[in-house]
Amino acid sequence: MIAKTPKPPYYAVIFTSTLIGEDNGYSKAADRMITLAQQQDGYIGIESARGDINITISYWRDLESIKSWKENAEHSIVQEKGRSEWYKSFKTRISKVERDYEFEK
Amino acid sequence: MIAKTPKPPYYAVIFTSTLIGEDNGYSKAADRMITLAQQQDGYIGIESARGDINITISYWRDLESIKSWKENAEHSIVQEKGRSEWYKSFKTRISKVERDYEFEK
Repeated sequence: MIAKTPKPPYYAVIFTSTLIGEDNGYSKAADRMITLAQQQDGYIGIESARGDINITISYWRDLESIKSWKENAEHSIVQEKGRSEWYKSFKTRISKVERDYEFEK
Repeated sequence: MIAKTPKPPYYAVIFTSTLIGEDNGYSKAADRMITLAQQQDGYIGIESARGDINITISYWRDLESIKSWKENAEHSIVQEKGRSEWYKSFKTRISKVERDYEFEK
């Protein structure tokens, strides 16, 4: 679902990844991280699509809430597991949404 | 493939969409738009994944190059066709990438 986000400015964390191969618990952990993110202060919304590359964009109120989420204890364990077991590569981009527009039929 | 992007700052156009249903020429047009975007001044890279929602993120040097791309004649025709034939909904977010980090195994 397209995330409902407030009037800009707000922040987007663009997380793009490729996996080594086997799911090996990845999907379950990814779903759990979405649930956990939703409970964080400053969380706004999330959008995710999986293909040749996986893209997850989470939206946040400010840089402080992004930092807190990155340092969340359970999230930190999963980040470490991601590096050792699941990801072939990833890139995280912290960006400030300056403008948006939408269309609905 | 994860886009190769320069040291920030640069811009990301986050385009999230849901389709009405039938492909009806959408995939072909989407592929053509990627090819066309690559030829524009200020283009840096693109990442795309299709699922329940489609996410396409294109990266650009500055706001001017994003504006030129939006107003490109062939792109404008396809945007119009998207509204009338393909999209159930979409959201476009213009964001400035301030920081990034990556991992490669």
